[in-house]
Amino acid sequence: MTLDPPTAHPATELDDVVHQRNRLGILTVVAEADEAEFGFLQGTLGLTPGNLNRHLAVLVEAGLITVRKKDTRGGRPKSWVKISDAGRKALAREMSALEQLLRRHQTGGA
Amino acid sequence: MTLDPPTAHPATELDDVVHQRNRLGILTVVAEADEAEFGFLQGTLGLTPGNLNRHLAVLVEAGLITVRKKDTRGGRPKSWVKISDAGRKALAREMSALEQLLRRHQTGGA
Repeated sequence: MTLDPPTAHPATELDDVVHQRNRLGILTVVAEADEAEFGFLQGTLGLTPGNLNRHLAVLVEAGLITVRKKDTRGGRPKSWVKISDAGRKALAREMSALEQLLRRHQTGGA
Repeated sequence: MTLDPPTAHPATELDDVVHQRNRLGILTVVAEADEAEFGFLQGTLGLTPGNLNRHLAVLVEAGLITVRKKDTRGGRPKSWVKISDAGRKALAREMSALEQLLRRHQTGGA
């Protein structure tokens, strides 16, 4: 008699870099828009500039986004945030784990 | 002309106490089983005793679970973790926010 290999709980598939509430927010917004401006992200997610900068730094460090300054007519340059291919893949993995978690929750386990 | 009130991004509905990867794992397991033993949670979620204890303490503090010792035949008493009504409600709110996030991701925003 052989036993099926134990299936990992979907929560163990979650990665803190992507799963953290604010970073998940940032990634979903930039995945939708391809590129998003710093102030837009701040407003959409209700973050202070310092808090947003801190989370952007973690995502840049992990290679999931890039940030670049763009000149604006007559104003200071603005920061634009773009998702990378690795970022799209990491977000897809997170969404897949969340979907499993939701399905499991809705069916009451198993 | 009136504008519709802006809809908050679903990521802003997530609560760190519940959303944190390991705590979300703990809550989903105890929601399924009603009550789960410490060692079972550890194995299912791949956590060290210290790490599991730390997250349980946060959840107890928030009133989302209760932990009690139960005697076992001939062995040391074991800790059992039970979800509270507030825990079920908090988990339902989290799952609802995750569902919105997933739906939004699948349709590419809006």
